[in-house]
Amino acid sequence: MALFHRLVRFMDPADQIFFGELGDKVPISQQELVGLETGVFQPGLLPWQEGFKLSGARAKIEKILSPLPSVPQFLCIGLNYRQHAEEANFPIPEFPLVFSKPPDTLAGPYEEIEIPLEAKCMDYEAECCVIIGKDLKSPLPSESLDPYILGYSVGNDVSARYWQDPGRSGGQHGFAKSFDKFAPFGPTIVSPETLGDITKLTMTTRVNGELRQESRLDDLIFSIDQLLRHLSMGRTVKAGTVVMTGTPSGVAAFMKPAPQWLVKGDVVEIMLEGVGTIKNTFV
Amino acid sequence: MALFHRLVRFMDPADQIFFGELGDKVPISQQELVGLETGVFQPGLLPWQEGFKLSGARAKIEKILSPLPSVPQFLCIGLNYRQHAEEANFPIPEFPLVFSKPPDTLAGPYEEIEIPLEAKCMDYEAECCVIIGKDLKSPLPSESLDPYILGYSVGNDVSARYWQDPGRSGGQHGFAKSFDKFAPFGPTIVSPETLGDITKLTMTTRVNGELRQESRLDDLIFSIDQLLRHLSMGRTVKAGTVVMTGTPSGVAAFMKPAPQWLVKGDVVEIMLEGVGTIKNTFV
Repeated sequence: MALFHRLVRFMDPADQIFFGELGDKVPISQQELVGLETGVFQPGLLPWQEGFKLSGARAKIEKILSPLPSVPQFLCIGLNYRQHAEEANFPIPEFPLVFSKPPDTLAGPYEEIEIPLEAKCMDYEAECCVIIGKDLKSPLPSESLDPYILGYSVGNDVSARYWQDPGRSGGQHGFAKSFDKFAPFGPTIVSPETLGDITKLTMTTRVNGELRQESRLDDLIFSIDQLLRHLSMGRTVKAGTVVMTGTPSGVAAFMKPAPQWLVKGDVVEIMLEGVGTIKNTFV
Repeated sequence: MALFHRLVRFMDPADQIFFGELGDKVPISQQELVGLETGVFQPGLLPWQEGFKLSGARAKIEKILSPLPSVPQFLCIGLNYRQHAEEANFPIPEFPLVFSKPPDTLAGPYEEIEIPLEAKCMDYEAECCVIIGKDLKSPLPSESLDPYILGYSVGNDVSARYWQDPGRSGGQHGFAKSFDKFAPFGPTIVSPETLGDITKLTMTTRVNGELRQESRLDDLIFSIDQLLRHLSMGRTVKAGTVVMTGTPSGVAAFMKPAPQWLVKGDVVEIMLEGVGTIKNTFV
């Protein structure tokens, strides 16, 4: 049985940090959580560490934090939605396209994201995130990967498309997406048991309230199981790694007649059914 | 003044781990170091931590370890030698091509490297490594980067070319190079003051004694200074990061009439003048 339904990490009014249980609550904003009291987990432990369980105590939410204090890396998949591969004019790939984002791209679900001077042509990418809960390396084909999945979140693979242009990147996607705080995710980590069949879920992106991306997760080219087996081939995918599983169609880069890049003041809300909504203002 | 000339990390006969000062010694094998006694640094500290200095004690070398116990990531540059860009038939790039290798690719300078089942078409890449000694982000153009460079090492950007093929990788270099232990480096970290002008240094690769790569570091397209400014653009390059600055011509993939991939039992020795030789057997 999972240790939690919906895990949230937060600061209380005394600046103490806790993991808390949100139960059935699917948060759409930070405001609706502030002031809420939740059951909290033994402090000082990460969800995959021995002894991580509800302590019996409760605490009041003052500020929602990133669901994990740090991550070893973000492993990201390109072109994993059929419609997005089509809008980008790429053939359906034979293997997942993999790149990564370093630990300092981590940002909270409601944190402001600074657009660095050099980060031109700013774009969003809604991503269903798989949070790894146990070191995974070269599983046997017959082995179930369920014990390795801590849960699911939703994230934004923020991208400065200027640097993703093949002439500037040599075709490598990672660099354009690795500015500090370019990987907000959250607001919760939902256990697989609680979330159920993810292919039935819908994910959306809104920019200043305008719907830009909307897709069911049944449009995935490679399933979560296929992705995790590929990503752990001969290598260790550490507990705490966040796998961003690709984005649906509707990114700014492919808008007609012209891309509508993110600018200062834009508010990007990304929602995954059952997980909640992250909301980041670009400053 | 630098804290060291040539830093080596090792285990003594009682299995204690130390950073030691090798002084003028430029190691070409582990054997010549075993049994040697060196001055050691205050134990339990990393070279960029407060209080890291020679303790006055000495210890005997039993086994040479990776120069750092762990790294945040390897940041790697593709196509940074004119001759290699030419052999690969790529135009000289306008900006550095950047990809990364995760922390678990770390391997010691004399460690055996396992070829995973899936890692086909195994290749070597000699790389001059820059070790970052202080968090670096968006330096001013007028700012010297000297305080951020802990020193230099030599490494091997081990690559399974099968997975680097654009049809399997979507053109992303990282995945093929991110199997566990695919980034040995060492054997020392040499301070910039001790090493002097790196463009005068020669780097070589030998496979089972046969010379495969040989180049002076003056063939670099982007200088170390240019690379570090690009890599830290709007993002934090953490202390302990190892920057692999690209490989010269002569990799197995471009050998005529056919590639000579590494196979089990092959011994790859990579030497950088002033730094020493790493030697890894593939098993």
